Amino acid sequence: MEKSKKEVLVLEDILGSNKKIASSIRKKLEDKGILAANLLSSPGSGKTTLLEKIGLKLKDRYRVGVIEGDIETERDAERIRKIGLPAWQITTHGACHLEAKMLARIFDQIPADLNFLFIENVGNLVCPASFDLGESLRFVLLSVPEGDDKPRKYPEAFITSQVFVITKADLLPYLPFDADRVTAEALEINPKLEVFRTSAITGEGIEPLCQYLEKKLQELRTKNA
Amino acid sequence: MEKSKKEVLVLEDILGSNKKIASSIRKKLEDKGILAANLLSSPGSGKTTLLEKIGLKLKDRYRVGVIEGDIETERDAERIRKIGLPAWQITTHGACHLEAKMLARIFDQIPADLNFLFIENVGNLVCPASFDLGESLRFVLLSVPEGDDKPRKYPEAFITSQVFVITKADLLPYLPFDADRVTAEALEINPKLEVFRTSAITGEGIEPLCQYLEKKLQELRTKNA
Repeated sequence: MEKSKKEVLVLEDILGSNKKIASSIRKKLEDKGILAANLLSSPGSGKTTLLEKIGLKLKDRYRVGVIEGDIETERDAERIRKIGLPAWQITTHGACHLEAKMLARIFDQIPADLNFLFIENVGNLVCPASFDLGESLRFVLLSVPEGDDKPRKYPEAFITSQVFVITKADLLPYLPFDADRVTAEALEINPKLEVFRTSAITGEGIEPLCQYLEKKLQELRTKNA
Repeated sequence: MEKSKKEVLVLEDILGSNKKIASSIRKKLEDKGILAANLLSSPGSGKTTLLEKIGLKLKDRYRVGVIEGDIETERDAERIRKIGLPAWQITTHGACHLEAKMLARIFDQIPADLNFLFIENVGNLVCPASFDLGESLRFVLLSVPEGDDKPRKYPEAFITSQVFVITKADLLPYLPFDADRVTAEALEINPKLEVFRTSAITGEGIEPLCQYLEKKLQELRTKNA
């Protein structure tokens, strides 16, 4: 509606070429038995904090690595390295989302014996949803302070994800956020979503989320066997 | 760095044409004595809530209207209409930011005798920063739950704004957010920023922000006289 013919053609070009690179990345990762998850959310929804919590739980039994996508700074990668996990930084210098070609460029640095590769996208609930990165799973996060009216306002991220994580659930008693309403709305948009309610403070939901990830890794291994 | 030559040319085209339309909108608005403010932030930072609070304070003495930019739904416009202010909805159907041409299309609906026109952009701390809408003032909002590491991670919105509003300040005692640190970092990026610390719950900072807006309206009137 808002785009000129030229804009539409260029966008189709970009998305088409992105899709090809992403498919090749996904095949390489899955062949190696690496389960990759792409995390999408607004800035400040708690993507890095969730990865810290999951990483600490998984790292004794699995090899875990994180790709950090940021417009500027290595702040998130530094946090991940502090808990003893490898983190590879992609700085987009202004670009509002990660693209598959950015991953392709650092792909050689990813160890082939990894079990879980988490990709923290740029903090943006809109644009990253259009770009496949070759992940096996996509997570959309929504934090309690953001409000429970978001799924219908930002539908694409919910439509294209397999996992919906409500974060900062420890704030539920203090803020007007109806977790049942937001879950129902997200499931109306995408009935296949797996929903987790988590808190990095109380630890709520972290264990079930890790069990889900382990189950998905097991499915990948069975497929590869 | 990440863009092809064709992409760069199309982007320059879009921004150039946007700039022209925006300049024409700004001239028309300022000639009419309408002070327009464009509000940028992540989803859920409290743009609509801040507008409700400001709107209620200003509406007895001024004519106030709101343009609501959303990807989908009229939820925010409905909230604004509920407090007795006119709201014009722009639904982008997927687009991650407002552009000046979208405003141009509904410009005839904006009453010429308005004093304040607030434009609530799509919830996105990245892309809207590149698009001038013809506003006289740009606000960037950051809510306490989002964390105090954001200005350097999302610099463009801070560089291009005149006003920085910290929202949900009532949560400061409960969350690890250093308001002095974030203010200092924002001012390093853009020393001209006017900074306000606000809470829609306690009312903190709403009155000073309204006084600032009234001062800016007065300056516009003096310029026009």
